[in-house]
Amino acid sequence: MEGQNNNFRYAYQGYPRNAWYVIAFSHELGDKPLARYICGDRVVMFRGENGQPLALLDRCPHRSAPLSQGKIVGNAIQCPYHGIEFGAEGKCLKIPSQNRIPDDFRVRFYPVKEVWKWLWIWPSDPAKADPALIPDHDELKLTDKNWHALPYFFEPMNGSFEMLHENLLDTTHISFLHGGAFDAGAMAGTAPRMEVTGNVIKIWRELTETATDLTALSFDLVAGHTYRRALITEARVPNLEIVTNVFEDMSGESPTRIRSSVIGVTPGGPQLCYQINAQVNNYIVPGRDAFDSPETQKTIARVTKVIHQDRDIIGAVQQNYNEAGDDIVEVSVLADAAAMRFRRLMIEMIEAERAQ
Amino acid sequence: MEGQNNNFRYAYQGYPRNAWYVIAFSHELGDKPLARYICGDRVVMFRGENGQPLALLDRCPHRSAPLSQGKIVGNAIQCPYHGIEFGAEGKCLKIPSQNRIPDDFRVRFYPVKEVWKWLWIWPSDPAKADPALIPDHDELKLTDKNWHALPYFFEPMNGSFEMLHENLLDTTHISFLHGGAFDAGAMAGTAPRMEVTGNVIKIWRELTETATDLTALSFDLVAGHTYRRALITEARVPNLEIVTNVFEDMSGESPTRIRSSVIGVTPGGPQLCYQINAQVNNYIVPGRDAFDSPETQKTIARVTKVIHQDRDIIGAVQQNYNEAGDDIVEVSVLADAAAMRFRRLMIEMIEAERAQ
Amino acid sequence: MEGQNNNFRYAYQGYPRNAWYVIAFSHELGDKPLARYICGDRVVMFRGENGQPLALLDRCPHRSAPLSQGKIVGNAIQCPYHGIEFGAEGKCLKIPSQNRIPDDFRVRFYPVKEVWKWLWIWPSDPAKADPALIPDHDELKLTDKNWHALPYFFEPMNGSFEMLHENLLDTTHISFLHGGAFDAGAMAGTAPRMEVTGNVIKIWRELTETATDLTALSFDLVAGHTYRRALITEARVPNLEIVTNVFEDMSGESPTRIRSSVIGVTPGGPQLCYQINAQVNNYIVPGRDAFDSPETQKTIARVTKVIHQDRDIIGAVQQNYNEAGDDIVEVSVLADAAAMRFRRLMIEMIEAERAQ
Repeated sequence: MEGQNNNFRYAYQGYPRNAWYVIAFSHELGDKPLARYICGDRVVMFRGENGQPLALLDRCPHRSAPLSQGKIVGNAIQCPYHGIEFGAEGKCLKIPSQNRIPDDFRVRFYPVKEVWKWLWIWPSDPAKADPALIPDHDELKLTDKNWHALPYFFEPMNGSFEMLHENLLDTTHISFLHGGAFDAGAMAGTAPRMEVTGNVIKIWRELTETATDLTALSFDLVAGHTYRRALITEARVPNLEIVTNVFEDMSGESPTRIRSSVIGVTPGGPQLCYQINAQVNNYIVPGRDAFDSPETQKTIARVTKVIHQDRDIIGAVQQNYNEAGDDIVEVSVLADAAAMRFRRLMIEMIEAERAQ
Repeated sequence: MEGQNNNFRYAYQGYPRNAWYVIAFSHELGDKPLARYICGDRVVMFRGENGQPLALLDRCPHRSAPLSQGKIVGNAIQCPYHGIEFGAEGKCLKIPSQNRIPDDFRVRFYPVKEVWKWLWIWPSDPAKADPALIPDHDELKLTDKNWHALPYFFEPMNGSFEMLHENLLDTTHISFLHGGAFDAGAMAGTAPRMEVTGNVIKIWRELTETATDLTALSFDLVAGHTYRRALITEARVPNLEIVTNVFEDMSGESPTRIRSSVIGVTPGGPQLCYQINAQVNNYIVPGRDAFDSPETQKTIARVTKVIHQDRDIIGAVQQNYNEAGDDIVEVSVLADAAAMRFRRLMIEMIEAERAQ
Repeated sequence: MEGQNNNFRYAYQGYPRNAWYVIAFSHELGDKPLARYICGDRVVMFRGENGQPLALLDRCPHRSAPLSQGKIVGNAIQCPYHGIEFGAEGKCLKIPSQNRIPDDFRVRFYPVKEVWKWLWIWPSDPAKADPALIPDHDELKLTDKNWHALPYFFEPMNGSFEMLHENLLDTTHISFLHGGAFDAGAMAGTAPRMEVTGNVIKIWRELTETATDLTALSFDLVAGHTYRRALITEARVPNLEIVTNVFEDMSGESPTRIRSSVIGVTPGGPQLCYQINAQVNNYIVPGRDAFDSPETQKTIARVTKVIHQDRDIIGAVQQNYNEAGDDIVEVSVLADAAAMRFRRLMIEMIEAERAQ
């Protein structure tokens, strides 16, 4: 995979817009409005008294105040400045200073669907927002009764969302950036296999490994014992990454542990992305069966510390891009086969949308 | 007033320059230089030993150091870097390293006039600075012996100065942004009247209202009692807003309270404005007859907290403008009649200046 | 020197790149990588186990991570992200995920030479980096056995490096910016002489002066006693300034003190420069014979406080340039003769490089 063709300038300056993206966990939308970015727009999300999640552009069409600083009133959000209210599909429901509401008085809205414990948002033309395009959560095992699924964490990162996809696709970084946390050091040196089908890029590595403290904790293994491990990363371009680990006890004594991180990878803006991380296991760890149990929260806090290494390096790479301007030509290596494939797929998707 | 014509893109990108603006209170100019912005320029203001206030561009014409970091020496300001001194009309008075001072060695100066307890500045060509254009302070009642006038507060805001004018002109915001502080909730729903004469836009609302804690404090009323209230806002484009409240005791027992906030609205730069707020009453509250009495200062602190809601929303609106670029088309409502009139007046003034 | 020709707009927007610049002291390069800027590029510097200093572009050619956040491994630096290693001349020495290393897999490198206790860097084409162009450290007396030389301090400043050169060349600022610290107030009023030879601009002033506390401390004089003083500033464009003071005891009792600050003036970027200050004396002060003695460190701390006045005014001037855009025309005075000469020399050098 090395050679001239892979050393191309990659601009990282777009995102497919005709797609559903995970924007938040259900539990993040309580009785207060929540502001988040999607494809460069800041949106305000809230639930009215009917429980329905809504997402509107976070800018009042009247005098541009941020609706997210307002109050939820019934099924509407009230602008903090002059009290104008907006509800489903962005329709204006009340103007305090007059009775007549013009028909075209609306704020831009974004279709939102709640599936499993996730909120999915559609950043472009609502007329194209086909719910059938949302990934099948049974197939993701998030809603499969035979598996145990939990929300995990939401983490914003100051880099393009392509960088986060590539971070997850190049698992050689585990041995260095996270040195000692997620592997015993041999991951980077293990040759991967790759398989591409449509918008799915799948790579896997197999190795024999001694469980580290953190893998033992996460996978309910015995630290220091030796396991057969498979690490499978699956990019579902543009909105998901599924990272599956299989740990098989070499002695055959304890049952095989399978666990997937199902990760929403969401473009906030040109230099902002979100990792929205859920997990699904074929096992339950005592005390960690619920999202809000102290043990689960402690584990998440520990994993998050390691994820901050990803966040920090992505931020530093973005800064290097910013400082260098358009000057950067990157050199790729064999292990980048999946990332290169990802870049090509991404460019094709963005160009196809532009051609429409 | 609603409809297509009012939904225009408003650029907020200029200010009339041939006008006097309030830039500071007299008491702010003590024995140290004061730096402030006017129409995009940073100026240094100081008083020489003759007490005269001067305003110069805050950039030494020699090597561009900020004069405001220097010392006042006699009737001049001394540059902190190489000690060159400048005085009235920006004339260089001393070059430490040589005796001869070239005639044309000057820093740009800005005419300043001290009237009442205010400093007025003229941001454009000094030759055009006609003191007769400064508003009549007797007519503003600030110097009228039958009224009681006090400096109140200086508050910088990170938004265009048009936004501050419109904030003051659309009094429906009182019921929402300041909910409960300045009215009992009915202000937004009360129909206003409007009157336009030359550069003066006047709107008023009349209602019957129970005094809130803060209105009771400010107007020396009894909290919880019912009053006939008139709220009159008068924009004197481009430099003043006068907000007058009249509270009439419905029982006829206590005298009518009239109080105006006379507000200098000053463009610091494209995203910076100042509210410079004075008050004039037809009554004196015991203990609050002087600016620096503890009671006055306590009241100002309380009012300032509410004014920070204006400052914060103006900053948030400006951020929304910045994030959206040139994309914004705002929709107006009936209550915006005065603001729309203001925008037209402002555009006319700026275009007239450009045509000169 | 005053008059029309000197009142020109000076852009401050370039630096000669075919030159060696001081980038750090030897002792700053320990067992951790050091990141610094040169001519707009961020470089990572480190010593391998062979002790050789290396400087590489601080951006991995693979996925643009900052190498300075990585580890030193043998004679190489290991990228913090995917563990790729780079060594002398930027050559890739290891790719963890594959055995073959492509020949052209390199990161940009910068020639570095260690002379005396200084690291000199060459910011442009390594093929042109002739060590003979490094100033002669014997001639600078830094390596002259008859003189006593010490590293002093490294100070970054947020302004163009031309500003720092001009700061050092216009010694009238001593009497104002540092009022009372480095002279007794008469420096600015003393007429200078100037001599220009090739890329060397030399000015000197002679005066009779009472030693201040800080000059007494620095030059081992008696505070309050009167001395004949000569202050000689020598700009060696583009990379050095040598500021020499001679204090002669008027009573003839104590020996003459000569001390030079030999100052690396280094362009970090358009708005960043470094002052890298060494001193060389014809005397040794007891307790201050070594860089890391408590007495030396105390003296450096005291001098650094005064140098921060230079840093702050340079930052403020740069801010004024930024706020004013291209609008600035500066007026010069007689004392600017050396600075004007410096500007012309700088422009000639930059234009000569561009013409190549």
